[in-house]
Amino acid sequence: METLLLDADAVDAHSPTTAVVDAVEAAFAAHARGETVMPAKSYVDLPQYDGDFRSMPAYLDADDWDAAGLKWVNSHAENRRRHDLPTVMATMCYSDPETGLPLAIMDGTTLTTKRTGAAAAVATDHLAVRDATTLGLVGAGTQSYAQLDAVLTVRPIETVVVADADADRAAAFVEAVRDRVDARVGAVAEAAACDVVSTTTPVRDPIVESAGDHTHVNAVGADAPGKHELADDLLAAAKLVVDDREQCTHSGEINVPYAAGRLTDEDIHAALGAVVIGEATGRTPADGVTVFDSTGLAVQDVAAARVVYERASAAGTGVSFDLLGLD
Amino acid sequence: METLLLDADAVDAHSPTTAVVDAVEAAFAAHARGETVMPAKSYVDLPQYDGDFRSMPAYLDADDWDAAGLKWVNSHAENRRRHDLPTVMATMCYSDPETGLPLAIMDGTTLTTKRTGAAAAVATDHLAVRDATTLGLVGAGTQSYAQLDAVLTVRPIETVVVADADADRAAAFVEAVRDRVDARVGAVAEAAACDVVSTTTPVRDPIVESAGDHTHVNAVGADAPGKHELADDLLAAAKLVVDDREQCTHSGEINVPYAAGRLTDEDIHAALGAVVIGEATGRTPADGVTVFDSTGLAVQDVAAARVVYERASAAGTGVSFDLLGLD
Repeated sequence: METLLLDADAVDAHSPTTAVVDAVEAAFAAHARGETVMPAKSYVDLPQYDGDFRSMPAYLDADDWDAAGLKWVNSHAENRRRHDLPTVMATMCYSDPETGLPLAIMDGTTLTTKRTGAAAAVATDHLAVRDATTLGLVGAGTQSYAQLDAVLTVRPIETVVVADADADRAAAFVEAVRDRVDARVGAVAEAAACDVVSTTTPVRDPIVESAGDHTHVNAVGADAPGKHELADDLLAAAKLVVDDREQCTHSGEINVPYAAGRLTDEDIHAALGAVVIGEATGRTPADGVTVFDSTGLAVQDVAAARVVYERASAAGTGVSFDLLGLD
Repeated sequence: METLLLDADAVDAHSPTTAVVDAVEAAFAAHARGETVMPAKSYVDLPQYDGDFRSMPAYLDADDWDAAGLKWVNSHAENRRRHDLPTVMATMCYSDPETGLPLAIMDGTTLTTKRTGAAAAVATDHLAVRDATTLGLVGAGTQSYAQLDAVLTVRPIETVVVADADADRAAAFVEAVRDRVDARVGAVAEAAACDVVSTTTPVRDPIVESAGDHTHVNAVGADAPGKHELADDLLAAAKLVVDDREQCTHSGEINVPYAAGRLTDEDIHAALGAVVIGEATGRTPADGVTVFDSTGLAVQDVAAARVVYERASAAGTGVSFDLLGLD
């Protein structure tokens, strides 16, 4: 009864994008059907260190499989400058729901990157135009790579326009992906005019003023009260889909206009899970701009962790460790 | 930047009882001073598996040190019968509060046993008569051993009376501890007449009807609504100290009479932390029976984990693992 330890490389190697997208889609469906147990994230706020910890436990039943686990993740804004450490570091505990046995402990940082990209792919699959060939990326950090990987699994993207305040970072992105797509650096407005756009920046003043006539936007960057990337007018005119109403109105892309009364509950078309199970519409011919507000759900982490655990176990990778002394 | 993996043996070897008792006392003091961040436990209830998971995150500042972490623990009542697995299995993530770095991942089951014993020792130190020489143990499972170890660090116990519905288990306890104390099997009433009594059973109908004139009772067994070990009259007449008001009224020893209105907030003398920092009295010459209602706080786990981590690191034990790929 050993626990499998999976480091960042193992998580990366055993989380093929298509499998994670499928698992995350199943998680959203389970969430919409009420077949999840997902307490609100609990926060341990440590202002003295400019940081916090979040505890994200969840269970989901996807009909032919179920899974449970917990992500423990920090966010310390000054880590890079003060300690040369990442801002965010996550540990994932993946457990057998039937017995509670800790099946695996894995790097949760890579996992988060993957499952966040996967959520955008699920949203893109249901909300973008079918023949989307252009992808805009606003922000060229780690998550932009995950967005490209994931969106490529659901739409025939040929051209990518990447915008970033840091020109070197944008250029590095183009260099890194040019063997797969026709990529170039562009302005935010150019990126936002594409068929699909993913925004992954931590800004507090919106930088995307408008989009194409039928653009689908994955708004991924906002993850705390006060953050938003899209102009209020753009949001107000869009067909708006959220990953979770409570999380999005509290700390997602829509939190600022929602708090100001500029957006209300009536402006939210549906939760993504409702679209996935057909309870709410995805894109229809009448739709213009669509926006997916992504804050990240614990069930996404659990679903992605299952992909990693099942594949890593089958491949015999990872380090077996008798954590609990059960042998 | 590796994470230290500590299995059950390592946790046991690096959690000397006196050090854990001191750390847990400091945690109770910090809790009373308001120098902790401890969100309510969140539950993932899985009735289909007769089980649940609990997520217990916390931070505490004990003045000359601080610490953060999370315990992820299940309770599956039928595990032993159905799967030959323990009912309860816990994983402890111990993190640097300043950066969020996961310093260690350790077995949380042994840790829980130790910190639960330590809480009883802290309570005993403040609430039992100074010259207590007799200890009663109601229940002879794993926790009874931890109770003996811990209480021995604060009182000059010479004689132990152990009561258990399972005669073999009681006899095994006596056999195991006879080199340290004068131990014998006895009835519940005999155990409860000692200077100090620790009750560690999962019963739903009280089995302790009365106690000695000046007995201090550590009521450890009740951990869910509906469970209690002590008769209402005994509780109502006692000087009652809780580890946490909310947890105790919800699922501790007092939850049943509290829900029934037999006990009210006025019957609770104080929280243990308030006694530790002198804000409330411990035992006074006027006191008869005292009761400590122990449900277990996340700050106890974090404080105990710090003891283990600091000592294991210094000793060079454990397995270093680059979980996050930071090297």
